[in-house]
Amino acid sequence: MSMLRLAIVGLGKIARDQHLPAVAGLPDIAIAAVVSRNARLDGVPCFESLEALFASDVAVDAVALCTPPQVRRAQAALALAAGKHVMLEKPPGATVSELAPLIASARDKGLTLFATWHSRHAPAVEPARAFLAANRPLSVKIDWREDVRVWHPGQDWIFEAGGLGVFDPGINALSILTRILPRPIFLRGAGLAFPADRAAPIAAELDLADEAGLSIRAEFDFLQTGPQSWDMRIETEGGTLMLSAGGAKLDHDGRPLVDEAEAEYPALYRRFVDLVGGRESDVDLAPLQLVADAFLLGQRRSMEAFTW
Amino acid sequence: MSMLRLAIVGLGKIARDQHLPAVAGLPDIAIAAVVSRNARLDGVPCFESLEALFASDVAVDAVALCTPPQVRRAQAALALAAGKHVMLEKPPGATVSELAPLIASARDKGLTLFATWHSRHAPAVEPARAFLAANRPLSVKIDWREDVRVWHPGQDWIFEAGGLGVFDPGINALSILTRILPRPIFLRGAGLAFPADRAAPIAAELDLADEAGLSIRAEFDFLQTGPQSWDMRIETEGGTLMLSAGGAKLDHDGRPLVDEAEAEYPALYRRFVDLVGGRESDVDLAPLQLVADAFLLGQRRSMEAFTW
Repeated sequence: MSMLRLAIVGLGKIARDQHLPAVAGLPDIAIAAVVSRNARLDGVPCFESLEALFASDVAVDAVALCTPPQVRRAQAALALAAGKHVMLEKPPGATVSELAPLIASARDKGLTLFATWHSRHAPAVEPARAFLAANRPLSVKIDWREDVRVWHPGQDWIFEAGGLGVFDPGINALSILTRILPRPIFLRGAGLAFPADRAAPIAAELDLADEAGLSIRAEFDFLQTGPQSWDMRIETEGGTLMLSAGGAKLDHDGRPLVDEAEAEYPALYRRFVDLVGGRESDVDLAPLQLVADAFLLGQRRSMEAFTW
Repeated sequence: MSMLRLAIVGLGKIARDQHLPAVAGLPDIAIAAVVSRNARLDGVPCFESLEALFASDVAVDAVALCTPPQVRRAQAALALAAGKHVMLEKPPGATVSELAPLIASARDKGLTLFATWHSRHAPAVEPARAFLAANRPLSVKIDWREDVRVWHPGQDWIFEAGGLGVFDPGINALSILTRILPRPIFLRGAGLAFPADRAAPIAAELDLADEAGLSIRAEFDFLQTGPQSWDMRIETEGGTLMLSAGGAKLDHDGRPLVDEAEAEYPALYRRFVDLVGGRESDVDLAPLQLVADAFLLGQRRSMEAFTW
């Protein structure tokens, strides 16, 4: 196919750290425009809104929405209406319900809608999936513990209503889990710890299962200091699988199977180019659904106030 | 078709008030068994568990699950595995995610799974839907205000985590709304009021929309004394539609179109018999999804403690 001309929408940390270098390293996609209310990128046409971009003579085939989830639905609807393919950063929206009209719009127009889950493109995720297809899982224990002060310094929005709190990293674990297990999973119960002065949880425990009764325990913590943990321990009929470093490493009974450097975003863009080439969409709502279910069903407890 | 032999599972208030009389009034379905841990029904074989029923020589074709949502998934899975058609009281589950495996199981086995929304069978709901298919809606205002002390006296479970609180009646409004509007809707924002000593909201405001920008405001209140309100006011290009009394009455520009006695459960069972006859399922998750989204996105505020 010819070069895919991409507009990056929202030029924040994730766009600069990941999207721009990933696109720069690939041969069949290029940045044709940037949309940002105040940031600019040298050498690239910049617009303050999607409306201004689409009214200009700068041609784009696709947009990557790196804006906060609360504004993304309207931007996606606008881009699809203008005939553009759409890539959504994670989470794909502020709610699950808002995705159905976007999915229908993309389908009706023959456009690609790609709800990305970057952690699914970590190098050990597909090997873990293949292993679990051949070796029945017996139990899963997830530890996702990081220091919010290191990874989201001063970002108050993460603790506002709809900001997901500790589920902002936790949803990455759920995106891996729902990819590698052979059966759909559901939530049996949850506990959510809210700082007294905040509207989103800072720690959570999830009790999950699949239809076959597989027991899955997930613990998310945003107050981890010292070593950080993004690990899943999976006991199987074929031995113990350890998926660690957020999906970059895989051990089987202590023997390393995968230990690679992280390269999630180039893989994400290769997938997007392939989807556009085949006029396919990929919108798996399962991880966001599990988070919404945890808020619906979860026991809330109050903790001391949080200060940066 | 031949007589459908039904087991009622969970012999609480809703089963006695609605399910038993509705089935008694229909010619092609009959109560063949009751499953309850402690309640009994004269003249009908009673069992303490679904396992005991299925191990007996009492033959049933279908089960109606009138148990609390938290235990219903496991019962539905068991009944489907035993080859029985399943009717689920509202809400269809404690979480949205748990429905996918049940839907797949019913489909694989050629069985009927029916997630009921009783309010959709109120007499004015289909006339309202037909009107809105022909007259574009311009705005919707929902007032769903009732006295929890009258309708759920002493039922503490309704204010426990997962008990839905004011969304227990509110989801009825959402089930009507998602049925009568011509396009899918999503949540833009929500406010949830929690009594200081309770884990579920006692009042809520929802700000909803559809893809065409239709503005929908819903207000749910569990502390209404005096007259109770279960009303929707819908401004349309063809005048004002008032759907009131929980869907039993419909006025157009002040002129009555429908004013009938409520007969939701007989309609529900006629639908179930039809679905079983055609080996079809009917599982619309939209109302429960909107509630989960409201918990995910909603601003929480604290109110004074609640006492019965």
